[in-house]
Amino acid sequence: MKKVLLVPDSFKGTLSSQRICDIIGERIKFHFPDSEVLSIPVADGGEGSVECFLAAMGGELIKLPSVGPLFDPMEGFYGLVNGGRTAVIEMAACAGLPLIEDRRDPMRATTYGVGLLIRDAVSRGVGEIILGLGGSATNDFGCGAASALGVRFFDEKGEEFIPAGGTLSRVSHIERGENALGNVKITLMCDVKNPVFGEKGAAFVYAPQKGATPGQVELLDLGLRHICDIVSRDLGIDVSNLVGGGAAGAMAAGAVAFLGASVRMGIDAVLDTVGFDGMLEDCDLVFTGEGKLDSQSLQGKVVSGVAMRSAAKNVPVIAIVGGVEGDISAIYSMGVTSVFTVNRLPEDLSVSRYKSAENLRGTADDIIRLLKRTGI
Amino acid sequence: MKKVLLVPDSFKGTLSSQRICDIIGERIKFHFPDSEVLSIPVADGGEGSVECFLAAMGGELIKLPSVGPLFDPMEGFYGLVNGGRTAVIEMAACAGLPLIEDRRDPMRATTYGVGLLIRDAVSRGVGEIILGLGGSATNDFGCGAASALGVRFFDEKGEEFIPAGGTLSRVSHIERGENALGNVKITLMCDVKNPVFGEKGAAFVYAPQKGATPGQVELLDLGLRHICDIVSRDLGIDVSNLVGGGAAGAMAAGAVAFLGASVRMGIDAVLDTVGFDGMLEDCDLVFTGEGKLDSQSLQGKVVSGVAMRSAAKNVPVIAIVGGVEGDISAIYSMGVTSVFTVNRLPEDLSVSRYKSAENLRGTADDIIRLLKRTGI
Repeated sequence: MKKVLLVPDSFKGTLSSQRICDIIGERIKFHFPDSEVLSIPVADGGEGSVECFLAAMGGELIKLPSVGPLFDPMEGFYGLVNGGRTAVIEMAACAGLPLIEDRRDPMRATTYGVGLLIRDAVSRGVGEIILGLGGSATNDFGCGAASALGVRFFDEKGEEFIPAGGTLSRVSHIERGENALGNVKITLMCDVKNPVFGEKGAAFVYAPQKGATPGQVELLDLGLRHICDIVSRDLGIDVSNLVGGGAAGAMAAGAVAFLGASVRMGIDAVLDTVGFDGMLEDCDLVFTGEGKLDSQSLQGKVVSGVAMRSAAKNVPVIAIVGGVEGDISAIYSMGVTSVFTVNRLPEDLSVSRYKSAENLRGTADDIIRLLKRTGI
Repeated sequence: MKKVLLVPDSFKGTLSSQRICDIIGERIKFHFPDSEVLSIPVADGGEGSVECFLAAMGGELIKLPSVGPLFDPMEGFYGLVNGGRTAVIEMAACAGLPLIEDRRDPMRATTYGVGLLIRDAVSRGVGEIILGLGGSATNDFGCGAASALGVRFFDEKGEEFIPAGGTLSRVSHIERGENALGNVKITLMCDVKNPVFGEKGAAFVYAPQKGATPGQVELLDLGLRHICDIVSRDLGIDVSNLVGGGAAGAMAAGAVAFLGASVRMGIDAVLDTVGFDGMLEDCDLVFTGEGKLDSQSLQGKVVSGVAMRSAAKNVPVIAIVGGVEGDISAIYSMGVTSVFTVNRLPEDLSVSRYKSAENLRGTADDIIRLLKRTGI
C-alpha cells in the first residue's frame, strides 16, 4: 500500500473529520510506515470548513476586520487555497449562531460581515469563492452580504437600507448597483433541500432554533415571500422554488439571485476544490465514512460521492461508519468495496459515544492488518 | 480463495456455532462460488456437541436404550466418527439438566446412563471416547457412570450400592472391579477450572442451579470431600486438587480416578478429533469467532486455540465476534490476522441480540467483499 486517501465525513457529535483522518492515518503509518497518506477532512460548509480545506490543501488563513451578526465589529477570516486562486469562506465566521448565542435575534441578524469577507477575497484576485452555508444566525435572504457587495435595497419612501429578516417586507425596490464581484464565480456548499419559504422553508424549519418566536416565524416567512417577489420583478430571477434556496436563512437563494452563485452538494464542492480526481492517480485505496450509512446516504452524502469518483478510477473504497441501517446494497454498486462499523461492543450510542476514538482506532487497525496480510 | 475453514464458537444466547457456519459459508459461496468451504461448528462439550462433531466430520449417530438422571428409562445417543474409531459422547444426553427440568434433584441424580453409553461405545470397538462435560443435572462425582463400567462402591456394612450426590458420604470402600474399558482412551472436554470441593468446587458453584438447597450444597460438598479421601486411599489417586475436577458435578475428577480419563480444553479436543491440522493444508483462510473477545479469551478459548494452530501453518485467521473489550493485542501475536465485530449499529445487546443473524451476515459479507477485491 503506497498511497492512501482519507476522505471521511465527521461522525456528528462524536468525531470530527480531521480527528478521523488522524486516527486512521496513524494506524496506516504504523502498519505501512512507507506509505503516503493524504487526508481530506470533509468540510460540510459549517463552522470549521475553512480549517478542513486548509488542512487538506494547505493555503493561507486570511484575517480581517469585519462585523458579526448584529453589526458588532469583529475579526473575520477565510482561507486562500490553490495558490490564491480560490477562497474558502464559511458564513458562520461572521454570521454564525455561536457568535451571538445569548443574543439570538433572526429579525435583526445580518450576513453583512460575510459580504465583507467575499469583498476582501475578490480584492485579492481570486477566481472562485467556495461559500460554506451552515450554522447561521440569520434569516436575511443574504441581503446583508449583497449590500456589502453593492446591491442596493430601497423602501417605499425610496430610502436605501440594509434589510434584515424583520425588514425584508419593507423592501420595495432593488438595484444591482456596482458589480463588486467582477467575474468571480461563487459556489455554495449546500446539503439541504428546503425552499425559501413555506412550511418547509427557512423560517418555519430553521428560525426557531435561531431564537424566533412563533409570531416572528410567521413574519420572517412573509418577508421571504415578499423578497422573492421583488427579486423576481426587479432582477428577473425567480428563486421561490429553488431547491435548497432556504439554506442558511435563505442566503442560498439570495446568493443565487444577487451574486450569480451556483448551488452544489458540499461533498462535490470539496472534491472538486481539492482536486480529488487527480489525487486518485496511483492511489491504492480510499477510506471514507460517515456517522450512519442508510438508504438516505445513497444520494449526495459523502460516502456515495467519494465512492462514485473512486470507482471511476478503479480504486477500492472502504467505508468506516458509526452504523449501518436498512438495505445498503446500492452502495456497493456505487463503488464502495466494503463497509465496517466501529461498534466494538453491543452498546447503545449513549454509552459508546464516549469510546468513539478508541473504537475507530481498533476498527481501523483490524482492517489495515487484514490489508497488510492479504497484500494490497 | 479456494479453500476456507470455518471454526467458530457459538455466540452464547444468540447464534449456534452451526448457524454461524451456515451464514458465513453462504456469503463465501455467494462471492466465491468455486471455493471449498469446510465447516467445523465447535462443540463445547454440552448439549449439541455430538451434533457438532457429526456435522463437522460426518459419522454415525448411535441410539440405544439407557437411563436418565433419575434412573428413568430413556433413549440415549452418541456419535461414531473417524470410521468408528472414535466415539463422541455428551454427558447431557443421559445426565442433562433439561431432561429433568421440573424434577431437579442433585442429591439423587446419577451419571449411570452416561456409563451405559460409554459401555456401548467400548463394545463397538472404538479406540477413543471424547466425553463432553457440560449441562449436567448431577453431583455424583461420576460414580454412577463408574458403576455402569464395573467399579464397585460399598457402604460401611459392606453392601454394594450406586452412589449419588446425597450418598457419596456413605461410601466406605471402592474396588476397581472388572476393567470394562480395556485400552479405550477417554478424553474429557472441560473448559472450567473448578476443583472438586470447597467454595469454588462443584457443589458450591454449580449445585444451586441444579436445584440444591443451601443445606444440600453443604452435604454435597462434604460428600465430595469424602469420596476424594476414599479414592485416594483405595485407588491411590489424589484428585482433590485436580484443576477442572469439579466440572459436571465432579464427574471430571471421577472419570480421571475411575476411568483413567485425561482432561483437555474443549477446543483442543475438537481440533484434534476433526484433524484440524491436516485440514489446514492448502487452506487460504480460516474464519473463527466467539461471543466476546477479551483478555480472558487469550487462554484456551476457541479463537486463541484456532489461531495458534493456523499460525503454525501460516494460514491467516479472521475472527468475527460479538464484541471486543479491553486489550486484545496478544491475540494478534497468537495468529489472529484481524478481528471484526458484528454490531452494525450502536445498540445494546438487549436490542441487537434479535438481529444477530442479519448483523453477522452483513459483517461477513463486507469482509468477504474486501477479500475478493484485494485478491486473497
